[in-house]
Amino acid sequence: MRSDEDKKALMQRLKRIEGQVRGIQRMVDEDRYCVDILVQLSAINAALKKVGYNLLEDHTRGCVSKAVANGEGNEAIDELMKVIQQFSKS
Amino acid sequence: MRSDEDKKALMQRLKRIEGQVRGIQRMVDEDRYCVDILVQLSAINAALKKVGYNLLEDHTRGCVSKAVANGEGNEAIDELMKVIQQFSKS
Amino acid sequence: MRSDEDKKALMQRLKRIEGQVRGIQRMVDEDRYCVDILVQLSAINAALKKVGYNLLEDHTRGCVSKAVANGEGNEAIDELMKVIQQFSKS
Amino acid sequence: MRSDEDKKALMQRLKRIEGQVRGIQRMVDEDRYCVDILVQLSAINAALKKVGYNLLEDHTRGCVSKAVANGEGNEAIDELMKVIQQFSKS
Repeated sequence: MRSDEDKKALMQRLKRIEGQVRGIQRMVDEDRYCVDILVQLSAINAALKKVGYNLLEDHTRGCVSKAVANGEGNEAIDELMKVIQQFSKS
Repeated sequence: MRSDEDKKALMQRLKRIEGQVRGIQRMVDEDRYCVDILVQLSAINAALKKVGYNLLEDHTRGCVSKAVANGEGNEAIDELMKVIQQFSKS
Repeated sequence: MRSDEDKKALMQRLKRIEGQVRGIQRMVDEDRYCVDILVQLSAINAALKKVGYNLLEDHTRGCVSKAVANGEGNEAIDELMKVIQQFSKS
Repeated sequence: MRSDEDKKALMQRLKRIEGQVRGIQRMVDEDRYCVDILVQLSAINAALKKVGYNLLEDHTRGCVSKAVANGEGNEAIDELMKVIQQFSKS
């Protein structure tokens, strides 16, 4: 459902996040200062949240809107609300 | 400052998180359902938060407590509060 | 747009939250233990979040769905995504 | 344990938050637009979080530091970590 371009952009962001997680491993290995590691962890969380909000938006514009337009929005919105809460709390 | 055992446990968790990030890449590549990807993203965020709270605790028991015991707690607590807020919002 | 029943239920929850905020004022006045006050603050935040998620759901089922069904979903979804992010971070 | 000045400032902020909660009740009563109500709810949450982080800081500088200086930090830090997590998730 995603365009090739969107997929490529998403993939690049996930590769960067993977690299950031490896960066944290290096920091732990080198006994770096806790607070510096925590700042990096915050950056990864923020990057993951950004990816998540993008997916959420795609999903709402795509699947959810289609379901609503077909008069079958109720279940799609139930699912959407559930995942928004789960994601927001994480 | 961390014991070898703590470091090893922390490293294992970070390796697992790295694997989870690669899992998301696979899901994107296979055009998996948005909501399933979002659920996985929430799981990674939760795992990173757990790592962060562990580091925060180590840091408070270690560096911050030492500074406080030496009568030099003010700056350490400033830094602690700042990183708690940054991390909590991420 | 809200039914009278929904409005009444929402009002009752907001009255209860108002009472909880006054409860915190009493705790401060009585010099109660910080941690107990923080636990109460967490409870209020959780209650406000619950109210917010309910409003978000009503809004998505109501206004947003109507806009989507009329082929005018884009702007409504822009606004929805913006408020979800603002609310989740608060 | 709090100075009279700190208490007064804290009280004023809590009074303002109480007023904001009543403001939301008015908005519901007047059938105001959901998104506007959600923006206001976000503002209240942010204000409560600010109060909470202030209390957390006072508590860490006060009770926790005293316990640490007396060589009895462990329990105080356990409690601190627990409340930080509870508060951050709310």
